[in-house]
Amino acid sequence: MVPKATAGTMRAWVLKNPGELELVEKPVPVPGVAEALVRIDAVAICATDLEVIDHGRPALVNGVLPFNQQFTPGHEYMGTVVDVGPDVDEYRIGERVSVEIHAGCGRCKRCRAGMYTACLNYGANYPGNDRSHRANGFTTDGGFAQYAVNHINTLVRVPNDMSDEEATLVVTAGTSMYGFTELGGLVAGESVVVIGPGPIGLLAVAIAKSLGADPVILIGTRPERLAMGSRLGADAVVNAKIEDPVQTVLGVTGGGADYVLDCAGTEETVNQAIHITNRGGRICLAAFPHEPVTIDLAHAVRNNVYIFGIRGEGRSATRRAMALMAQKRFDAKLIHTHTFRLADLPEALRYARERVDGAIKVVVRLHD
Amino acid sequence: MVPKATAGTMRAWVLKNPGELELVEKPVPVPGVAEALVRIDAVAICATDLEVIDHGRPALVNGVLPFNQQFTPGHEYMGTVVDVGPDVDEYRIGERVSVEIHAGCGRCKRCRAGMYTACLNYGANYPGNDRSHRANGFTTDGGFAQYAVNHINTLVRVPNDMSDEEATLVVTAGTSMYGFTELGGLVAGESVVVIGPGPIGLLAVAIAKSLGADPVILIGTRPERLAMGSRLGADAVVNAKIEDPVQTVLGVTGGGADYVLDCAGTEETVNQAIHITNRGGRICLAAFPHEPVTIDLAHAVRNNVYIFGIRGEGRSATRRAMALMAQKRFDAKLIHTHTFRLADLPEALRYARERVDGAIKVVVRLHD
Amino acid sequence: MVPKATAGTMRAWVLKNPGELELVEKPVPVPGVAEALVRIDAVAICATDLEVIDHGRPALVNGVLPFNQQFTPGHEYMGTVVDVGPDVDEYRIGERVSVEIHAGCGRCKRCRAGMYTACLNYGANYPGNDRSHRANGFTTDGGFAQYAVNHINTLVRVPNDMSDEEATLVVTAGTSMYGFTELGGLVAGESVVVIGPGPIGLLAVAIAKSLGADPVILIGTRPERLAMGSRLGADAVVNAKIEDPVQTVLGVTGGGADYVLDCAGTEETVNQAIHITNRGGRICLAAFPHEPVTIDLAHAVRNNVYIFGIRGEGRSATRRAMALMAQKRFDAKLIHTHTFRLADLPEALRYARERVDGAIKVVVRLHD
Amino acid sequence: MVPKATAGTMRAWVLKNPGELELVEKPVPVPGVAEALVRIDAVAICATDLEVIDHGRPALVNGVLPFNQQFTPGHEYMGTVVDVGPDVDEYRIGERVSVEIHAGCGRCKRCRAGMYTACLNYGANYPGNDRSHRANGFTTDGGFAQYAVNHINTLVRVPNDMSDEEATLVVTAGTSMYGFTELGGLVAGESVVVIGPGPIGLLAVAIAKSLGADPVILIGTRPERLAMGSRLGADAVVNAKIEDPVQTVLGVTGGGADYVLDCAGTEETVNQAIHITNRGGRICLAAFPHEPVTIDLAHAVRNNVYIFGIRGEGRSATRRAMALMAQKRFDAKLIHTHTFRLADLPEALRYARERVDGAIKVVVRLHD
Repeated sequence: MVPKATAGTMRAWVLKNPGELELVEKPVPVPGVAEALVRIDAVAICATDLEVIDHGRPALVNGVLPFNQQFTPGHEYMGTVVDVGPDVDEYRIGERVSVEIHAGCGRCKRCRAGMYTACLNYGANYPGNDRSHRANGFTTDGGFAQYAVNHINTLVRVPNDMSDEEATLVVTAGTSMYGFTELGGLVAGESVVVIGPGPIGLLAVAIAKSLGADPVILIGTRPERLAMGSRLGADAVVNAKIEDPVQTVLGVTGGGADYVLDCAGTEETVNQAIHITNRGGRICLAAFPHEPVTIDLAHAVRNNVYIFGIRGEGRSATRRAMALMAQKRFDAKLIHTHTFRLADLPEALRYARERVDGAIKVVVRLHD
Repeated sequence: MVPKATAGTMRAWVLKNPGELELVEKPVPVPGVAEALVRIDAVAICATDLEVIDHGRPALVNGVLPFNQQFTPGHEYMGTVVDVGPDVDEYRIGERVSVEIHAGCGRCKRCRAGMYTACLNYGANYPGNDRSHRANGFTTDGGFAQYAVNHINTLVRVPNDMSDEEATLVVTAGTSMYGFTELGGLVAGESVVVIGPGPIGLLAVAIAKSLGADPVILIGTRPERLAMGSRLGADAVVNAKIEDPVQTVLGVTGGGADYVLDCAGTEETVNQAIHITNRGGRICLAAFPHEPVTIDLAHAVRNNVYIFGIRGEGRSATRRAMALMAQKRFDAKLIHTHTFRLADLPEALRYARERVDGAIKVVVRLHD
Repeated sequence: MVPKATAGTMRAWVLKNPGELELVEKPVPVPGVAEALVRIDAVAICATDLEVIDHGRPALVNGVLPFNQQFTPGHEYMGTVVDVGPDVDEYRIGERVSVEIHAGCGRCKRCRAGMYTACLNYGANYPGNDRSHRANGFTTDGGFAQYAVNHINTLVRVPNDMSDEEATLVVTAGTSMYGFTELGGLVAGESVVVIGPGPIGLLAVAIAKSLGADPVILIGTRPERLAMGSRLGADAVVNAKIEDPVQTVLGVTGGGADYVLDCAGTEETVNQAIHITNRGGRICLAAFPHEPVTIDLAHAVRNNVYIFGIRGEGRSATRRAMALMAQKRFDAKLIHTHTFRLADLPEALRYARERVDGAIKVVVRLHD
Repeated sequence: MVPKATAGTMRAWVLKNPGELELVEKPVPVPGVAEALVRIDAVAICATDLEVIDHGRPALVNGVLPFNQQFTPGHEYMGTVVDVGPDVDEYRIGERVSVEIHAGCGRCKRCRAGMYTACLNYGANYPGNDRSHRANGFTTDGGFAQYAVNHINTLVRVPNDMSDEEATLVVTAGTSMYGFTELGGLVAGESVVVIGPGPIGLLAVAIAKSLGADPVILIGTRPERLAMGSRLGADAVVNAKIEDPVQTVLGVTGGGADYVLDCAGTEETVNQAIHITNRGGRICLAAFPHEPVTIDLAHAVRNNVYIFGIRGEGRSATRRAMALMAQKRFDAKLIHTHTFRLADLPEALRYARERVDGAIKVVVRLHD
């Protein structure tokens, strides 16, 4: 039995100076309308956590990027519902849940059309302009803490036989799934190329294969990551340091792939994506270069290639990803390499940042 | 300058016994989160108002259809924003607005996907199960009153040069527009048949023509209504009492229409719709028979005909309808035939119900 | 090595009087532009074959249903490419292929939009009005013969490790897959009900589960078929003779299913489909009642439920189904119960028609 | 009465050396299956004609761009049907028609899905690999001649009251319409920005306004072209030489436009497009930079902005454009500035290339 959270304080990591975190005592947040309080049981580390820690929250307030020193990052978490807001009966206390990041405002034109990850009020949840948008770990307090408040729209039930660690990976898998959703969703029998064997790319391989894509080709540069891609279902892997990925993919697919998911997001990989997509095919950018890039846009336009950028895990893709994981279609746990405790978050972050000891997904557990 | 509404009471019609209304004093409602208070300036009468008055609210509460004697019907209204909830700056006090009916709960899977008129919490806005769903005039207090509260998602700005009466018609036009939205939206150059020249059907003719449909054929039985259809843009009208609408449409269209909007909703018209749609075409039922009907479903399946039922005015269709009306693409005012004052609502309802004096749209004005 | 077919004759079953077939010698057909000649290796029997045998080809010619006594039915076949038309290099002689039924005319508005199963020139492939439409086994010669000509669009490669018998089942699986395509395609994690455990229904269960649907519920009346459904992945089965399927599904799904595929097509099952679909959900009719039926259309419209009738296996669904079968996502062979030789087709048809010995799919092999 | 074309020769301009054309006698082509012979009555000049004349046909043959000295360019033509292929009854001799450019092969996966402008067999219509793809004026003989053969899919009927000159403009308008089709089609009430007031851009303004977009903003640099945009319906025009188009659009639209159509296709305008699209909005590139460009892709991805490149006028957009023009929703004739005779084509091309005398659309008439 999980006790109802009483008002009180909790341990939480908060931003200090850029690049620094501090473990503090903070009030346990209180769930409001359509919200639940989640006791965090495990939280995985994502590359974007490092960006938030180094640069602050990605939402401008009055044109300024606020480096809030009380802010708690962390967005790939799972836990147990310990309290709910008024009139919430969609979730019961004691249920294990994983999370999506984005709860749209529900009042802008994008949210109204179901595009909550493109909410026009992204980041607007502060006094004087509270639009109730939440992106926990990005614009509202996240999961490097003992508790977090989540809009019920962002909760996904965790099956009993799924470990806490595996359940944190559904956030990543949801992003991969969202890519295929935006690309059209009908991927059985279509050719898919994934560029970049980071966590999103690796799970994209697994999801593409689960949905019946054929072939699924993974492009990367590190042999051990490519080997991991093979274990997760890639029909072919291409080491871009050894062979020309464009020529190889054109050969294997007989003229180009139907869908390309670029999870590396460099100038080089965006151009690869453009040149390995067949006429009428589609590219999803699940990562992107931070600086302007020089790309062969003409090739894309001449070939009727569409380019979709995605942000997070919209269209309830996380729930679809969880459905596949609950049915054990692929073993996401393969990418979980290291586990730390909450007090050791800085060390966990170092493992993730420096890929110490071949780290892919580093998970922080909050209990023994 | 419009004064901010002070706390106080207002005149409002409320349900009494089935079929009866009573004019009472009621508290002016208070706008909450993401809501505005609208001073009603005009409200049109729709056939579904008569159903609510006769049978009560269409949402079950604990399995029972509640005939709430304090309930205020009326849903085709427009007015002036006189107050807003906390942090609302999307609308300013003094703006003229028309309304959509449905504000979804924002927390069910349908709302999350943008299908707010199919909200799974339809009608759930009472103590103990408040999901914040609103369908003003159906499940929450509506517009046969001096004031109403609206979720800001349901407001549509009214241009300065549009009269109050015309602005009430956008609710009807929004339903017509929603039909074409669900049918696919690309109607320029496609053949459209509208069955049933009631207000929704007549404005559907106007909207189909505005979107470039060709030809637009209207089927009905009353000559004066068909004549009105011609004035609103119908390329051809068919009097089903005089000629066989199926044969006529098959002839005019050379084998059937691409899109059929049935706004009559009888067993006869549903079967007509099935038989006048070409292979691969689509039918939208904007009205429906209350009793089970015997239909030639085989013809629809064999011909790959899809049937879409719509409820209200989803996918922000009302805003698209208003855009066309603001640009004066058609003269919706043609269907406005009679005007009454709020105190005379019962007589206005009688005109609408009995089509006294050729009544099509009867509008109630709240000011001189 | 497969020898190139020489001009000559072949054995083929042809229609005689309604309900009768005769085994004759007929010229081997010659592949034309964009066509291939397929040596048939195996052909499965579908319930619609029996309809063609009893009633003739389903396409009207000059308003008359032609009972062509030279016509060869049979549409669920696979075989080996033994010749190709001019400039065909998409397939090579010797390749094993399964088939889709429909090759649209390519010149009507539906074909042009990719809706080739809704071709407006369905059945038009006779002198004086040759639109090149083909629906082998329905409007053009089919597979109860040694050879058939197929448009290359209708060919699907068969993997080496798939038996001839299993490869015939992809035609059925393609229809099931098409149902989910029209219903939206995104079924992972959504609730699916399949009504009717015939071959299409049983493979629909398998495909729904392969795509990640959860739960998948099968409704039927025969215990052995329901048991087969469980083996193919159904999470729950409902015997409509024992329990009320509507109440059961509403209970299991907590208010109704997201997608319902009716593969029984009776008045009773259509009404069940309407009442077990949740608000905003969708129904696909993969079978249909031949006579007009009395249905509760109001319930569908009030709940924004869409009804899609499908014809065959459009949108290249057969290729997607083959992709899943090639990846061994489910064991379609479970529904293959009996095998006959070409000379014994009448007996094979009797087994299929009378479900002799629990027959589900009866396959005719053309070689030893 | 139009005489049936007899076998014989015709006058036609053909490529000579790069940049040169020669007027020759050539055989009148013969319509085949599903084709018609069109006597050309008028043909407009497009910027891409100049590219073909300078650089040859845009389809590689065996990896080489063929500069075919017998090839006839010209793709924006209209005329009169004077002969049809076998079994063609969709068009009658004597009908006036305008054209689409692309007739897909009908046998690749893109054509099969309705994406005929992305045909995988683009350009493949030569002996030994004839896939029947046609892109008249690009890969097959076009309209700077007395006659041309067209697939019937590419014909669009011209109303009696539309002049030959106006009818040539529907090809351009079809491209503009296709842009809005790919962008989603539902543009009523949405904000649209068109960059680049060339013919496609100017007609895009007219079509956006016809479809109810509001506001429609045109960005350009030449005052007379912007003035033309205003006459065609633009609600606002921005001279990028005088004011910053990004700041102006963000101001006018309150945060960015829903849809942006870039018809200029320079590095500068692509970046403008990215920065003036609101979150979740969409960009269509109807023109493109020939060299690689440096763009702020991060801004697009972070804001969930989708980029669609289009090629020509797919999804039957030309028919939809003609429907609007036939209904006189806008006056395309405004952009027709100069008229020449066939013998004077080189001079007509000079006017178009050098924009002599403010030339926008230069039309060549073949009769008096």
